[in-house]
This record gives sequence, structure tokens and C-alpha cells, in this order.
Amino acid sequence: MARTYLDTGRPIFALATAPGRAALAVIRVSGSSALERCDRCFSGLRPLSDARGYSLLHGFLVDPDSGERIDEVVASIFRGPRSFTGEDSVEFSCHGSPAVASRALAALERTGMSPALPGEFTFRAFINGKTDLVRAEAIAELAGAQCESARADALSRLSGTLSSEYASLRDAMLDLLAEIEARLDYPEEEGPDEADAAGAPSPAQPGLAVLASCEARLERLSRSYLGGRLRQEGALVVVAGRPNAGKSSLFNLVTREERAIVSPEPGTTRDWLEAWIEIGGYAVRLVDTAGLRRAEGGVEAEGVRRSLDLSGRADVVVYLADGRAGLSSEDEEFIARHPGTIKLWNKIDAPDCLPAPRGGGWLPVSAKKGDRLDSLEAALKKRLDSLAAGGDGGASSGEIRLASERQKILVDRCLESARRAREGAAAGLPLDAIALDLREAAGFLGEITGEIAGEEVFDRIFGSFCLGK
Amino acid sequence: MARTYLDTGRPIFALATAPGRAALAVIRVSGSSALERCDRCFSGLRPLSDARGYSLLHGFLVDPDSGERIDEVVASIFRGPRSFTGEDSVEFSCHGSPAVASRALAALERTGMSPALPGEFTFRAFINGKTDLVRAEAIAELAGAQCESARADALSRLSGTLSSEYASLRDAMLDLLAEIEARLDYPEEEGPDEADAAGAPSPAQPGLAVLASCEARLERLSRSYLGGRLRQEGALVVVAGRPNAGKSSLFNLVTREERAIVSPEPGTTRDWLEAWIEIGGYAVRLVDTAGLRRAEGGVEAEGVRRSLDLSGRADVVVYLADGRAGLSSEDEEFIARHPGTIKLWNKIDAPDCLPAPRGGGWLPVSAKKGDRLDSLEAALKKRLDSLAAGGDGGASSGEIRLASERQKILVDRCLESARRAREGAAAGLPLDAIALDLREAAGFLGEITGEIAGEEVFDRIFGSFCLGK
Repeated sequence: MARTYLDTGRPIFALATAPGRAALAVIRVSGSSALERCDRCFSGLRPLSDARGYSLLHGFLVDPDSGERIDEVVASIFRGPRSFTGEDSVEFSCHGSPAVASRALAALERTGMSPALPGEFTFRAFINGKTDLVRAEAIAELAGAQCESARADALSRLSGTLSSEYASLRDAMLDLLAEIEARLDYPEEEGPDEADAAGAPSPAQPGLAVLASCEARLERLSRSYLGGRLRQEGALVVVAGRPNAGKSSLFNLVTREERAIVSPEPGTTRDWLEAWIEIGGYAVRLVDTAGLRRAEGGVEAEGVRRSLDLSGRADVVVYLADGRAGLSSEDEEFIARHPGTIKLWNKIDAPDCLPAPRGGGWLPVSAKKGDRLDSLEAALKKRLDSLAAGGDGGASSGEIRLASERQKILVDRCLESARRAREGAAAGLPLDAIALDLREAAGFLGEITGEIAGEEVFDRIFGSFCLGK
Repeated sequence: MARTYLDTGRPIFALATAPGRAALAVIRVSGSSALERCDRCFSGLRPLSDARGYSLLHGFLVDPDSGERIDEVVASIFRGPRSFTGEDSVEFSCHGSPAVASRALAALERTGMSPALPGEFTFRAFINGKTDLVRAEAIAELAGAQCESARADALSRLSGTLSSEYASLRDAMLDLLAEIEARLDYPEEEGPDEADAAGAPSPAQPGLAVLASCEARLERLSRSYLGGRLRQEGALVVVAGRPNAGKSSLFNLVTREERAIVSPEPGTTRDWLEAWIEIGGYAVRLVDTAGLRRAEGGVEAEGVRRSLDLSGRADVVVYLADGRAGLSSEDEEFIARHPGTIKLWNKIDAPDCLPAPRGGGWLPVSAKKGDRLDSLEAALKKRLDSLAAGGDGGASSGEIRLASERQKILVDRCLESARRAREGAAAGLPLDAIALDLREAAGFLGEITGEIAGEEVFDRIFGSFCLGK
């Protein structure tokens, strides 16, 4: 039978660093008898099980059956609960060779430990109370951070800013719920009716201010998802234009000038050019829609269709017009269909370049010479900032943002229930109806942090983690 | 001015694990003021410079200027000389995100430390007397080990078996040299001439037995290079045959059945199929010469030329004949041109398959059904074992092997000088001539281990290391 996250009886192990040839690789082990079992694979001055927590031990990883040395290692010892998982843990720092890793992992398995499921170390940290689900998701988001803004957001979530916001919202709701329930239990304690006449708040509208504040905070969180996801996953920026407008020159120039960042999908071949670059702290997947170039045969038509589809899905489209050819009807058609496009009037280095059309927001550039490229970058950064701020153009730096779709869905459900509670209170609905909505809203927040969580969510959350996490 | 390995004044830092998204990444720092400088980027319960060696400290990597948190980390503290480099060292275990690594490395640089050159940590271990050049090369070989046999060889060299052999050879030569030089200084202490007549060894033939034994050991070392390199770098196995002989079926079957190992050249596209697999403990680059298939146009002819070229360079060629078509003149021609080819008589699953030609060493198989594939694997392993044993078919397991071309060149030079010394002694040449050859031979061994080494060799040896090593 396949192991599940809830099988926590045995220690688990996994390679925790990226595979491939390197100076070092780290193999992580965690579980209640981890130190004793690892000792069967370790030969050093002292056994690992004699070492204090937060200490290092030099020695050799050995085959538990033959005693053959596999690698010279340094072992980091952590003793629960003072460890990432809350359990006893060992991290073996080995030489970074695939052959060493595969022999070492095989040796560890022979001591009766299990290869870890994706995210299983973090799952154990969660069930041992070392982290909540929001911070657990932040760990995966931090590892996946491709650019500075994603790193900063994820670290902020990892250090608990977002968890605190959820917890504080839930506390406010639960406090109000307790108050309402007290009134339901002891209705005689309600204030006299004359209070109403004196202008005091009606007891039928409990905590309207609290509910309104919760609603506003939930709305802010829900809105933050757009920017959070953009910062976490990067933006799709498509370069479009007619043949010979200079798209590829621009693409080559930008990707050469900018520090290229590693694609999350290495080796994927496509019929268009693309590169990951960083602009203004955002990871940008820049795509040169080479497919737009010609549409004669069947293959080319398919290329154009895909290019238009890409432009439609793009976070930002950069459109190049050929300044020597002037604005064509195709140019105008494309721009009309893609509002918000950044428009470049290219080839200003050519003596026969026409002046850019007035008032259309065209930025004059020379993709060939690299002239005025800074204006494109500034325009791109401004558009991305505006998108990251949820489209309202407001300042967003330092704000708490979500990047998890799971959280976004639950925040929206919570918002819906909280709004119903507030509207009910305002309309003077019975207290028990309001309590029902409020309890539901608080429940969604509990699901977000994992205080209330079914088994089925574990696979979904932790299964998307990378191995060794 | 560019830094060189000999600029050891400043601490150095580098990412020591493979780049990419992962649970963990390790950044290594080493140098005389490493702990103090790292403290400017570290915020924990205690400063790193207060921690004992071989201890772990939890905290945050921070920007040294703004104090902004970059990542939550665990720092491993090593105090010189009890460290890999012999200097004070820190290893930061960070979250495995490219964005974290790039921010963290930038922060470390701002404390006045230098990005490490390739292999610079190992170089410092070398100049601080923690390792010799042979073991330093073994570290790079271990990281590059793609298969079990390469790992075992490299670990054996890392633990000093090969260094000891060189040292023991050099000691034997230096002892003999001391003896010869003593005789040169005090010729009156030579034995009386009558000893000659009595059949005692002539003083003009000093240490003939020692020299002969050194020569034999050097020959063994020199011969071991072929197998060492094969085990370290892997073997090129080419699948050849006429169109429709079943080459691709065989290739697909073997690569699907065997655990594929990662190519050292990811993303390289070629006009033939290839995969790294492991057979009998050897890394094998298996190539399906698809190019041999047709030779009609210019492109196809070029393909055939390259396929024949590959077959010529292969360590082993596996040739498939179509058992239903029978042996063709092209089959016979190819086999005649490639002695040592493993010959497969394919399609034995077909009812109209002809019997394999007698006496030609043809192995009957069915690439389609996977029948008798074990006989191919056994034949391949036997051929590789024989190649690894230096072609003489002798048992080679447990033997000390070199895999470094640098060492092989120096061993051969040493062998030449040692042979000259032995021949000179046997021919009764003057003692000072023998001493000259012997000193030269010992010198080559000193160069191998680095006891005698010019600056120019450092770039060559350490420059080929991966970063962070």
C-alpha cells in the first residue's frame, strides 16, 4: 500500500538540494528513531545518537550491510523539538555527485527508513505544531521565488505576517461570536429598549464596526492575490508586431542587457523564442512571437493563431511599429484589440524614420541601436507595479500579499460569509442567523491556517512541494 | 586586476550546491576573518564569531546595509584548522531558491569578501596542508562521478590510497638516492673489490631490485589510467546496423529498462539519439546511430559519415543484423572494419527468422520482445571490465587507479626516468648518472602530489573544478 502523509511512524529521508554535479549535496533525515537508524550508515568518532542537538559530526556514510564507505560527510544533528520538523533530524552534507546521492539514499533505505513524499518534512513540521499551513506554503513559495519581489513576499509570509493577519481576523470574529452567543444564552442581559430611543446602537446590530473592518481587511487580502501571484509566478510579456518591425532585435537586446534568469521549464522547445529576465524586481517571461511573422502556409497560420492567443493571455503586450513604414491598418487593428499595450515606434535611428503618431502614447526607440530602451523598461515597470497593486495603481510595497490560490478561494468564501453577517446585522436579522454566518467565516480562516483541516487537503498542499522539503 | 588563487588574504564565498529550485541550498564561506565578516550579514541569538567550531546556529541572513532579512538559515561553524580549508569557515543552509542565493551572495560580497574562483576552497585546503593535489583532484572526480564504479574509485583516491602509493614510491626512490649520494660522498666506504669475485652484488649496481620494483609499480599505475578514465568518464557504446535491423527498438528497450542517468550535457541536441545509462557499474553513453539509416541526399550522407566516425571512436560497438533478411555484404564489411564488435542476431521472435551464422559469435536476441537482452548486458559488462582492466583481461576490482590525465603524464615521465636509472645501474653506469635519473623520477612524483608545484599548475588543476568546491 502506498504511504500517506499520515504514516508518521518511520523516519523519512530525501535529497534536499538540487540534483546535479556540485561541490555539496545535502541529504535530510527526520523521525523519532532517525539518529539510531542513521548510526547504522555512519562511521565517525562518535555515534550520531550520542551527539548534542545543533552540533556537527565528521565521519563517513557507509553501507549498512558491507560497511563499504560511500562518502566522507559532515552530519548536522538536530534534536526534536528543536528542529525544522520538530523530530530528531540529521542532515548529511555529502560531495555533490549523483552517484554518491543514489548510493547514500539506497543505504538509508536499507535501515528501514522511507523515502520522503514531496513536502513531507514540512508536513511533519505542520503536524508537530512548528508551522501553520500558510507558512508551510510560504516555504514552497520561497524555494520557487525567481525574483527579488517573490523572495521578499515569501519570506514575509514565512516569518508569519500573513498568518498573523488571518489569526487576528479570526480572533476578531470569534470574539464577536462569543459575544453574540452570550446574548443568545442570556437574552435578559440585553439593554433596555429605551437605549434605542436615546440613539445608542441597537443590540440587534452587534459589532457592526468590527464586521465592517473585517470585511475591509478581507477585501484587501483578496485584492492582494493578483499582485502576489504576479510577483510569485512572474509576468508574461509578449513582444508583438508586423514582420520586420524589429521584434527580434528588441528581444535580443533586452535579453542580452538584462541578467537572464533560469527558466522553470528547462529544455522546453517552442516555435517562439522566450527568456526569463528580471525587470524592476519582477520575473518576466519575455516572448518574441516569431510566429506572427508570416501566415502563408498551414503551419504559419497556426503560428499566428498561437501568437494572438499568447498576446491575449499576456500580462503586458509590447507592440512594435515600423517607424520607416508608418502605421498600417494591421497595427491599428491589433492595438484596438489589445488595450493597455505598450507601443514602441521603432527605427528612430534610420534617417527616413517617420515621426511617431501624436497623442497615441507611442514611445520612440531604436531596437537596433538600443536607444531609449530605458523608456520601455520604465513603462514596463509602471505597468507591472500597477498590476501588482491590484490594478488600482496604489502603492503596494510592504503590503501583505497572498500568492496561494487555495488561500484566495478560502479568503473569498470567508469574505462572502462576513459580508452576509454584516448585512444581516445592518438589516436587524436575528442574532442566531448572524452567528451562523460568522461561524462559517471564522471556519474558512481556520481552514486557511490549518487549524481546521481535513486529510484531503494535505495531499493537495504538500504534494506540490519539491522533494526533500 | 583579476584575483588569482594565491590571493588568500580575503575570505571567499560561493554557492556550493547545484543551482535550481530545491528544499535547501548551501553557501560556503572561508577565510581568516570569515566569521566576523559574516556576522555583518547574520542576525541570530548569538554572533557567529562567538560560536564554537562544529556547532550550528539558527538565524537570518540579512542585508548588511539595510538590515532587511534575506532568508531564514542555519549556519554551520568550522574553526580553522578543523575545517575543510583549514581556515575559519561558515556554511549557510538556505532555502533553495535562485532569488535567495543571488541576494545572499550579493550581501556577502558587500562585507568585503570575494566570490570564490572555481576550486578555490580546495586550493586553500591544499596550501594549508589539509590535502595533496591527488586528493584534491579526487574531490572533483567524486563530484563528477556518474556511476557507482567512478564513485568508489574517487572515494578511494580521496581517502589517500593513491597518494600513499605515490608517497611510498617517492620514499623508496629518495632512500635509494640518499644511499647513492652517501657512496658518492664517501667512496672509501665502498666494499672491497673481492666482494665482486665472491658473487656479492656490485656496488656499481645499487638497489637494482628496488628500481625494478618501482618500475613495475609505475607501469601498473600507468596501465590503470585506461580503466580509471573509463570508470570516471563513462564508455561510449554505439548501436550500429543497416536500416530496419531494429537499432531503435534496441535503444528504446535498453534505455527504458535501465535506470537512465543524467546527461552531463543537458539540452544538447544532435541528429542522433543518445542516453546515459548504467551497465554493470559503468556509466554508458549509449548512442543510436539513426544517421546510418538512409544515405540518399547530402544531409543523410553527412549523417552516415558521422555515424561511422562515432563507431570508430566508440569504446564498444553493438552491431545488429536483421535475422529475417540474413547477413548482407554491408554487415560483413562493417564487422570486418570494427573488430571487437558485439554482434546481435535480431528478430528471433519472428517465425521467418533465419538461424544465426555459426561460429561468428552472434548473440540471438529479440529487440522487439526484449528476449535474451541479458546476454547483451553480460557481453557489454565483460567488454567494459576487460577495457577497464587495461585490455589485459585481468581482475581489476579493488585496484588503485588514476583517472587524471595530468597524473598519467607525470607517471609516464617518472616511469621513463626510473627505467633509465634501472638500465643505467644494470649497465654499470657511474653512480652520479643514476642519481640524476632517480632525482628526476622522484621529482615527477613530487609534482603529482604537489610537494613540488609551480604556480602555473594551480590554474590548470583548480580551474576545472566546479564553483563552491
